[in-house]
Amino acid sequence: MAQKPSLPKGTRDFGPIQMYRREYILDTIKHVFRKYGFMPLETPAMENLSVLTGKYGDEGDQLLFRILNSGDFLNSTSAEDFENGSKAVLPKITKKGLKYDLTVPFARYVVMNRNEIAFPFKRYQIQPVWRGDRPQKGRYQEFYQCDADVVGTDSLICEAELLAVVEEVFQLLKFNDYSVSLSSRKILEGIAEICGAANQFSTFCTILDKLDKIGLDRVVEELQKSGIKPEGTEKLKEVLSIEGDNEHRLNQLASYFDNSEVGMKGISEARETLTHLVDLGATGNKVNIDFTLARGLSYYTGMIYEVKPTSINMGTITAGGRYDNLTGVFGMPGVSGVGISFGIDRIYDTLAELDLFPEDKARSTKVLITNFDQDSQKHAISILSALRKEGVACEIFPESAKLKKQMAYADKKRISYVLMVGSREIETGVYTLRDMSNGDQMELDLGQLLKQLSDQGA
Amino acid sequence: MAQKPSLPKGTRDFGPIQMYRREYILDTIKHVFRKYGFMPLETPAMENLSVLTGKYGDEGDQLLFRILNSGDFLNSTSAEDFENGSKAVLPKITKKGLKYDLTVPFARYVVMNRNEIAFPFKRYQIQPVWRGDRPQKGRYQEFYQCDADVVGTDSLICEAELLAVVEEVFQLLKFNDYSVSLSSRKILEGIAEICGAANQFSTFCTILDKLDKIGLDRVVEELQKSGIKPEGTEKLKEVLSIEGDNEHRLNQLASYFDNSEVGMKGISEARETLTHLVDLGATGNKVNIDFTLARGLSYYTGMIYEVKPTSINMGTITAGGRYDNLTGVFGMPGVSGVGISFGIDRIYDTLAELDLFPEDKARSTKVLITNFDQDSQKHAISILSALRKEGVACEIFPESAKLKKQMAYADKKRISYVLMVGSREIETGVYTLRDMSNGDQMELDLGQLLKQLSDQGA
Repeated sequence: MAQKPSLPKGTRDFGPIQMYRREYILDTIKHVFRKYGFMPLETPAMENLSVLTGKYGDEGDQLLFRILNSGDFLNSTSAEDFENGSKAVLPKITKKGLKYDLTVPFARYVVMNRNEIAFPFKRYQIQPVWRGDRPQKGRYQEFYQCDADVVGTDSLICEAELLAVVEEVFQLLKFNDYSVSLSSRKILEGIAEICGAANQFSTFCTILDKLDKIGLDRVVEELQKSGIKPEGTEKLKEVLSIEGDNEHRLNQLASYFDNSEVGMKGISEARETLTHLVDLGATGNKVNIDFTLARGLSYYTGMIYEVKPTSINMGTITAGGRYDNLTGVFGMPGVSGVGISFGIDRIYDTLAELDLFPEDKARSTKVLITNFDQDSQKHAISILSALRKEGVACEIFPESAKLKKQMAYADKKRISYVLMVGSREIETGVYTLRDMSNGDQMELDLGQLLKQLSDQGA
Repeated sequence: MAQKPSLPKGTRDFGPIQMYRREYILDTIKHVFRKYGFMPLETPAMENLSVLTGKYGDEGDQLLFRILNSGDFLNSTSAEDFENGSKAVLPKITKKGLKYDLTVPFARYVVMNRNEIAFPFKRYQIQPVWRGDRPQKGRYQEFYQCDADVVGTDSLICEAELLAVVEEVFQLLKFNDYSVSLSSRKILEGIAEICGAANQFSTFCTILDKLDKIGLDRVVEELQKSGIKPEGTEKLKEVLSIEGDNEHRLNQLASYFDNSEVGMKGISEARETLTHLVDLGATGNKVNIDFTLARGLSYYTGMIYEVKPTSINMGTITAGGRYDNLTGVFGMPGVSGVGISFGIDRIYDTLAELDLFPEDKARSTKVLITNFDQDSQKHAISILSALRKEGVACEIFPESAKLKKQMAYADKKRISYVLMVGSREIETGVYTLRDMSNGDQMELDLGQLLKQLSDQGA
């Protein structure tokens, strides 16, 4: 009674071709992270629930995957607990959960290793996380996050470096159609102040954040409904109508901030970030100061940025910002930091949609050596050995088979070349090398073959 | 009320230095896998329990980590279930578990993707697995497995290639003090036959497997107690006393196998594997035919091998063998294969104990640029940019600080060089580069600096 196996909803296998493409993205990001001085960290999939719960709001708590205690897991529950339902039973039968993001485990790591860490601590972390969200297109219950953070310094060089990382990563991925929105909680606070909305900052931001979706008129309407005076919404309209390049817009905005200390601070931080970015050798030409960017304001306290493709509709593919208090909840106050998170799945979908992945064969085996019979096999293995000594990724079809079958194998596996080794080739010492991309064939002796294939690199 | 955070027992963080060392091992293994034509695969951490249970025996089922269903997980349980205890409640509150090894998910993947896969399918997989074992030194509840398998062919070239992979991996890791034991279930069956133990093969193997621990006399004693006749144990003693090189020992053993077809088959397979191994360009000089190697006989059906360090006591660090029926349990019969599993944690401990890790600084940032004040900072950032353009991994200390603090940072982070950029250096255009490994200092202008640091590679 064999069962037909299946995958849990919201999870995925990554087969070879997907792996090559994911590696292409992740190797690029890792390379840039390391060039900028970030060091790798990995934390376990399982965390104690005491570490996870209460960190992501009530909704987050509900989306945590909890692991059942081992053994007789009911042994500390009572019939009364059971009658009281899931909430009463829960704490008695589960102590561990799967991590929900990389930030809370990072904070735990920092606290537990505070005496060994060299601060400012620049770490990157690329690992799966788990959330019991309802699965849908592009939303998974198990997915990778790819974060870099610098903690233990307020220096705006760090903000600028993360923006430079973004520029360098997407340049290496040959992806150009994107824009980076840059703002600051402090600028938003300044705008709220001059609109007379300082006391309802979070409502103000929630409404402003809908600008793209509902348009300015309805934003104004909603703000007035929530108590903002017409003079306030008038000021907002003026601020949002400021045009020109980043420098000009910051200068114009500054003229509104005479009485907003926090607003002026936000402007000076934005200016400093942009200056560092250029000094770092980045063009910065994708960065747009955006007064309406109001993401993550429950935790971001300084600069905020997000990256979106411009030529396709994909949503945010990378985002981050500065936060004040990473580890306070674990009893270690005063650790501020700034981070960035690359959305691997969306970057993958973006490159796929724009056909920007390099050919998969660049990462697969380079040469398949044919196997026709017992006699040629031994000879073929010796050529295999010679090629591998030169560092060429190659393989022999492990059993004798018809050419057609072996060619189909090479094709499916995206192998670049097939080398024919049959009795004629062994006799003459001249082998036929077939380029699978165009069907071209070359006749080469062993020396020429080794040179041909190793010259191109492994 | 800040809590003191902790890690679940049996789990670990991998901080930067551990990550560098693990990467050194894993990058080496991946490089060799790919050179031999293996392709990467990743499967989810979570699998349906229907896929996992019943595959690892009763003990394995008990060690599975089960994930509590989301939401009101008690809604399909009754008071009666609860009275009947954990076993009755279990299937109603959990449907998913964490994977226990990489083989069962691999089998599931093969079955689900049988029409797309190019057979013979050579895949490698490096991912964590989870087991609710009691944690102890060197045994974790969450740990990595690192497997490569070829499925869909009986060719002994595959066995030989995996042995060649072992040789190449440990050569690249500069680790030489190991031996590879090679045997075959068929050879063991042949020996059992000539000892008159064919009908109690598994008991015979279990006792034989204790040879190292309890010695020959007690093995003979236990075999006789279990019903093997003295003529049988006498034959065993003769077989175990065969000495000499692999070829000689196989020849000697063959002389006992006149009436054992399976035994002769085992010998001819071992000979063919060794021949292929040499043809593949491997020395094969660590491989010893071992008539007593009796591991994994509940699933291995052909060649079996294991690798142990010889100069330290570490147990098996790598092992594998051929199996007959990977996917039968999922309704796809006839898929045989051969695999290998590198024990990453033990290889890590072995290299650490033998001091074989390369210097960590090779993988950390190469240069730290000092930051003394606002004026020098801008200049320092321009040098940072110039170095990064040359591909040099470098960073600036993000805030002005005393030299001592910056040196301590570089030291803790295993950074190779510190570049001093202060007012004097900016004035003269000559910078001091300090080699952190020996304290040597060089005076270099920008051109010399770029040449010095980029010549050595990033």
